[in-house]
Amino acid sequence: MDIAILGGTGDIGQGLALRLALDTNHTIRIGSRDAEKADRAAADYRALLAERGSDVALEAAVNTEAVHGGDIVILAAPPYHVRNLSETVADQLQEGAIVVTPAVGMQQQDAGFRYNRPAAGSVTELVADTVPDHAHVVGAYHNLAANRLSNLDADLGIDTLVVADDPTAKATIMEVTNAIDGLRALDAGNLANAPEIEAITPLLINIAKQNDGLHDLGVRFV
Amino acid sequence: MDIAILGGTGDIGQGLALRLALDTNHTIRIGSRDAEKADRAAADYRALLAERGSDVALEAAVNTEAVHGGDIVILAAPPYHVRNLSETVADQLQEGAIVVTPAVGMQQQDAGFRYNRPAAGSVTELVADTVPDHAHVVGAYHNLAANRLSNLDADLGIDTLVVADDPTAKATIMEVTNAIDGLRALDAGNLANAPEIEAITPLLINIAKQNDGLHDLGVRFV
Repeated sequence: MDIAILGGTGDIGQGLALRLALDTNHTIRIGSRDAEKADRAAADYRALLAERGSDVALEAAVNTEAVHGGDIVILAAPPYHVRNLSETVADQLQEGAIVVTPAVGMQQQDAGFRYNRPAAGSVTELVADTVPDHAHVVGAYHNLAANRLSNLDADLGIDTLVVADDPTAKATIMEVTNAIDGLRALDAGNLANAPEIEAITPLLINIAKQNDGLHDLGVRFV
Repeated sequence: MDIAILGGTGDIGQGLALRLALDTNHTIRIGSRDAEKADRAAADYRALLAERGSDVALEAAVNTEAVHGGDIVILAAPPYHVRNLSETVADQLQEGAIVVTPAVGMQQQDAGFRYNRPAAGSVTELVADTVPDHAHVVGAYHNLAANRLSNLDADLGIDTLVVADDPTAKATIMEVTNAIDGLRALDAGNLANAPEIEAITPLLINIAKQNDGLHDLGVRFV
């Protein structure tokens, strides 16, 4: 498949690009608002992958071009940018494209990080509202620690929860995800179930802060 | 320590009573609104424990008596009863008593179970509002599957998140909890961090419903 990772120069974008490039045969295209930045990131990722004997030819383009041809379009942007990014590329999504959104809204308070739930119910549903009917939205990768994902020496051994209203799109993303070594995709139902998933991310930060020896935490359902 | 499990005839109460009785030397007292029901439950639990060679003498009493002498008072009531239970026993909590609240509010919608967050922020904080200043509130055991806890043949291998504003009370509950075989207590910060913990419970139900082979799920932070 053709996978465009928009905002692919950011931390979660880097982790997904490296893991997908290493463990799957999909075409991976890094998008950025800045074409040069996309090029540099793709070159950096290729160098990291080459160290591990992989010669994957990562593509790079500005977001509005990177989206073209994407069977899967991952919106790897921060929560305060992701809606704008989604709106920017909405018209260019191909028929049947699957838009994947991992963004989570958080705010830091005295006691720790808290889930900042938008009026739409979740950031996932906020993004879904901007995606045209000819494409499908899947929520996934919300609770992945970017550092751990990007560190190819780190074993994952963690789960990621996947939500979507379209069962075929959900199954596709679960299959792509399960191909990443150490990452298990679990079906968490429809998009309406996204808030409880997104809320885990601030919790992971709080737990890592409070307990010695825990950092870049992931979650495993057992 | 002296541990009173109010509502200890219910499913989560049963699980906590059995596990604490089996793996620790604390005094365990089962409370119920009905003294006879408490007696019957304690007898049932003793029989289950005897099958495993344990001769722990579980006590039993009506909730308003069971609370007396409790260093730790676990409010093992359903979410729609827990505030009332807490108010009923508030005056009888001894100086320095630790009140533990595991209740979570949920509602079933078409797409699945959803976290039903009360205006107080969380059920944990709703309970905390009813507890007098001479006692401490700890949120714990929110995400434990009662069936798994009660089944003494089941390996746990799971975590429970603990929140409190009083660090000593939190440390006490973490120590008591870590004595249960296969259960790891993790510090999740202050009571204000409870909503994101409580929200995991409906998510666990959704995941178990959507994925073959998964049931009575717990969570592990890795």
